[in-house]
Amino acid sequence: MTKKEYNEAAAKALTYFEKAAIVLNEEEKRTVEVADFGLGRLLETGLQLVTYVNNDRYCAKEMVLFPHQTCPEHLHPQRADGAPGKRETFRCRYGRVYLYVEGAQNCDASRAPAGVYTVFHEIVLTPGEQYTIEAGTKHWFTAGEDGAVISEFSSNSQDESDIFSDPAIVRIPEIE
Amino acid sequence: MTKKEYNEAAAKALTYFEKAAIVLNEEEKRTVEVADFGLGRLLETGLQLVTYVNNDRYCAKEMVLFPHQTCPEHLHPQRADGAPGKRETFRCRYGRVYLYVEGAQNCDASRAPAGVYTVFHEIVLTPGEQYTIEAGTKHWFTAGEDGAVISEFSSNSQDESDIFSDPAIVRIPEIE
Repeated sequence: MTKKEYNEAAAKALTYFEKAAIVLNEEEKRTVEVADFGLGRLLETGLQLVTYVNNDRYCAKEMVLFPHQTCPEHLHPQRADGAPGKRETFRCRYGRVYLYVEGAQNCDASRAPAGVYTVFHEIVLTPGEQYTIEAGTKHWFTAGEDGAVISEFSSNSQDESDIFSDPAIVRIPEIE
Repeated sequence: MTKKEYNEAAAKALTYFEKAAIVLNEEEKRTVEVADFGLGRLLETGLQLVTYVNNDRYCAKEMVLFPHQTCPEHLHPQRADGAPGKRETFRCRYGRVYLYVEGAQNCDASRAPAGVYTVFHEIVLTPGEQYTIEAGTKHWFTAGEDGAVISEFSSNSQDESDIFSDPAIVRIPEIE
């Protein structure tokens, strides 16, 4: 991702936080995280985040998906010390979230972009609705035509340990 | 607290969530928690809450303080099994929060209502600002003239185990 692409996506993410009436402080606005997962097609497969707090016990983030943008399939594995992987609760604040987890397929697979997608149990979240994803569960999520803003409440987060179904993915972005 | 007092406070709390543009679902609206701490003077010493999720690993709540309403001094003790007490991060979403924790006194004690208050290290939070309170730390908090809406991100919550400085306090409300 180039610096220009990062800046454009970060600025666009701020407009979604405004739509959701989520107030960020100046440091948070300057440090919005933009993840293109190393694929170089951010508007299709990507995610924008602000982390409020991430300590050894709990974590809270706000996430933005642009219209039809997808966070690709992954799971949060058990830690090297045997501690359980990350459990997380997604709460929709704005827009519409299409979340896919392990379980009986209840939709067609058409919302998945190019890549490796294997779970198709769909849960639709509108503002005020939430869903908890247990550790070790494969999941991916995408937004409807208006994009989405999602609060994530979870146990400790170590994004660098996430296991993606697509081996081409690199979670921690490289900005040129 | 009478059922009428509960209903009035819960309805009023919903207007503060609207001011903060926080969307609740119908079940959450029907089950707003109103705590008068057994003191019977809710508008002075009280708190309104919605709990989004509270599991063995993490918890997320939204809290409302009416103008100048105070959540009285307490701490979150170590658990019976030796696990650490609750750590919590307060993030101001609306209004102004005056939070008091252990440490050097840096204010006069005039914001404290009647009751037992012993810590006066003041932290002021405006929208977008947050503060993390370590387990076992005495703290209390109150709102400015516009009230406040506060997101709380934390480890597991067991309100019934909170230790209040004022022995007259009963945390779990009794509604007549």
